[in-house]
Amino acid sequence: MAAAIGQLAAGARGPSRFLRCGRVLLTSGDCNRGAAGARQPQPEQQLTICRQLDGIRTIILNNPKKRNALSLRMLKSLQNDILHEAESKDLRVIIISAEGPVFSSGHDLKELTDEQSQDYHAEVFQTCAEVMMLIQKHPVPIIAKVNGLATAAGCQLVASCDIALASEKSHFATPGVNIGLFCSTPAVALGRSVPKKVALEMLFTGEPITAQEALRHGLLSRVVPEEKLEEETMKIAQKICSSSRSVVAMGKATFYRQLTQDLKGAYHLASHAMLDNLATQDGQEGITAFIQKRKPVWSHS
Amino acid sequence: MAAAIGQLAAGARGPSRFLRCGRVLLTSGDCNRGAAGARQPQPEQQLTICRQLDGIRTIILNNPKKRNALSLRMLKSLQNDILHEAESKDLRVIIISAEGPVFSSGHDLKELTDEQSQDYHAEVFQTCAEVMMLIQKHPVPIIAKVNGLATAAGCQLVASCDIALASEKSHFATPGVNIGLFCSTPAVALGRSVPKKVALEMLFTGEPITAQEALRHGLLSRVVPEEKLEEETMKIAQKICSSSRSVVAMGKATFYRQLTQDLKGAYHLASHAMLDNLATQDGQEGITAFIQKRKPVWSHS
Amino acid sequence: MAAAIGQLAAGARGPSRFLRCGRVLLTSGDCNRGAAGARQPQPEQQLTICRQLDGIRTIILNNPKKRNALSLRMLKSLQNDILHEAESKDLRVIIISAEGPVFSSGHDLKELTDEQSQDYHAEVFQTCAEVMMLIQKHPVPIIAKVNGLATAAGCQLVASCDIALASEKSHFATPGVNIGLFCSTPAVALGRSVPKKVALEMLFTGEPITAQEALRHGLLSRVVPEEKLEEETMKIAQKICSSSRSVVAMGKATFYRQLTQDLKGAYHLASHAMLDNLATQDGQEGITAFIQKRKPVWSHS
Repeated sequence: MAAAIGQLAAGARGPSRFLRCGRVLLTSGDCNRGAAGARQPQPEQQLTICRQLDGIRTIILNNPKKRNALSLRMLKSLQNDILHEAESKDLRVIIISAEGPVFSSGHDLKELTDEQSQDYHAEVFQTCAEVMMLIQKHPVPIIAKVNGLATAAGCQLVASCDIALASEKSHFATPGVNIGLFCSTPAVALGRSVPKKVALEMLFTGEPITAQEALRHGLLSRVVPEEKLEEETMKIAQKICSSSRSVVAMGKATFYRQLTQDLKGAYHLASHAMLDNLATQDGQEGITAFIQKRKPVWSHS
Repeated sequence: MAAAIGQLAAGARGPSRFLRCGRVLLTSGDCNRGAAGARQPQPEQQLTICRQLDGIRTIILNNPKKRNALSLRMLKSLQNDILHEAESKDLRVIIISAEGPVFSSGHDLKELTDEQSQDYHAEVFQTCAEVMMLIQKHPVPIIAKVNGLATAAGCQLVASCDIALASEKSHFATPGVNIGLFCSTPAVALGRSVPKKVALEMLFTGEPITAQEALRHGLLSRVVPEEKLEEETMKIAQKICSSSRSVVAMGKATFYRQLTQDLKGAYHLASHAMLDNLATQDGQEGITAFIQKRKPVWSHS
Repeated sequence: MAAAIGQLAAGARGPSRFLRCGRVLLTSGDCNRGAAGARQPQPEQQLTICRQLDGIRTIILNNPKKRNALSLRMLKSLQNDILHEAESKDLRVIIISAEGPVFSSGHDLKELTDEQSQDYHAEVFQTCAEVMMLIQKHPVPIIAKVNGLATAAGCQLVASCDIALASEKSHFATPGVNIGLFCSTPAVALGRSVPKKVALEMLFTGEPITAQEALRHGLLSRVVPEEKLEEETMKIAQKICSSSRSVVAMGKATFYRQLTQDLKGAYHLASHAMLDNLATQDGQEGITAFIQKRKPVWSHS
């Protein structure tokens, strides 16, 4: 797991030196952030805001004027925030949310014209795919908290998270077809989240679905009134923080691995994971505490 | 894609000579139809009606007296209508609907008794599977528009389409078990559309599910009141016609290909598809038009 | 099929000698039951009650004081009851239900402390996986009938059945994370029944979902008021009994086999199954009876 994350971190293009502090400094565990954008040395705008408190890291897409477009810089900023001290015991869960009425509108189209080279386009798509796959490979649960519109690669980001909550007013679409660029990479995540017919109607028409439809079809795990979104998301995050970090990490990794196996292979893999889990300190502590009717004390390792 | 379609066309048994015109002549783009049925030279009944207008081809199963049974002749007529000038720029979307209260009752059981040879039975099942797989391989989106009962291979046909709309009164069943012929081939499409337990309850009991249940479980992408079915279907079809044919074709092919890969393979494939898409004329036209805030002018190639 | 079941039966650990009769004797087809528990010779408690009438075998988890924990003895008792005369023509469908307000709370945690050897833990997980896979390999449909709470391996048991009905008041959870033992083996069945995000929210938080949520997401095929649960379950069971046993067995085996293939492989397999089905006595009897408008008379072979 650590190795996999390490590889992904190494694969992240551009300087990843964690030069600057996040704007909102809450604890010593604050995310720092890599210098964004290798090409154009930028002044001050932070594309993502990252803060961490009591084990909960919140990453906020912070470019509402550009509808939180997933430009290459934004993708790398997000990647850095996700990867930052991924193995730290102080990090237990990540929430990805956004500033403004649009969660994210997907790629920055100005980066995809023929003013940029094909190599640049390739880097955009590769970085995007890396971020999406990183979410599954990351040791802690990653939650999308959506309050508004998520389209194209923005919808892909929601589909790629482990858990996704949205407010009632949120909508989801893959409208690339409207501008002649079919949402083929968003479809990788979308087609693994919702039934084939729902995915294809979205992809072929570009029309949005409501939060309730997204819930019905599996893109979301929960829809709540807007005024409850923060509270419900925090409830889930805090619940995750009350568990053993190492048990959760092992469970998450096993979940995604077994899901691609046939049933026999999946049970072989998962049964061994159960034995490994039992053999850990927290595995025995949890069961002992349960039998002794007391609260467990986790080592998280 | 063209090659794949070509192979399927070559695989279509029986004369495929597009001898006759459709009954309903709307434009020069009308579907012609192959002589139906190799075995018994038939008089005049057209098992499917095919018409095309403004890029939208509508294929109507037209044997309501026999509950639109998917006889070998019907399957070949449907196959010919789907394959006819599949690569023409004038064809942008296909709608499959039906005459009468039954969308389709599945195979014609009279073709499956021991009065017919096992080779004949094999041809029926092979042709049926070819038609179902053809729908995925076809370059344009294929929409099922259901207003009534779809059972057995009729339900399979709905499950195999890219998009499926139905009226509220529609029902879906796989009742083969009642007559001692388990719906194993319909189950291929059904089991890939709805959760395992829903599929098995349908297959083991033969009992129908409602349109709302079919929507909830992923067999349909949309359920509408009967009086809105035509309008809603046309809205989707027209929306598809407003996009670039080549972009849609590339997107559809990529969708089905990536869905069978593991996540990394899927992203590899889809990222390349995005680059290829960008490199097309319509890819650049779409983005340029968007940035210039004008309507794109598609070449469709 | 028979061979596969035979292997599984041989794999069942502990004496499987069908020594004792079920408590509730209804017909000569009653399930007997193997001596439960190799380790501690037990006095009289029967962990499962098994009865059979008119082709319908009902297996009742019968340790409500221990919340029907799936101890090794319980798992073996369940396994024996499922395997008992699996190939008998008198057996047509199996219903798994439970005594008391908890369907099953999953593994017996006292068996998973370090007071037991790792070999013992391994046997628990292996037996559990065998029981779950046995359900798919079994020739007759197996229905979960849930009236209460199903958690951890208890939830896995529901997810593993072919069909699952529950009363409105039922709940489902995978709370292992709370006691430091992530529900990785339950996740094998759960992750194949519900969308990824729903599974992960359940696994990461341990929080229960309602019966309606379980239905929406595919864990159940039907939810009914508590007072209708028996009637609705029996309706399905009786409907299955009205069909040919051999046709159902062939259909069930084909369903699970084709589902793991790609589309072309699945159609190849399923088309051959249709031909094999047609060639059976019950296949031709069913079609002939349908055409002659009379009730079929099944041979069940």
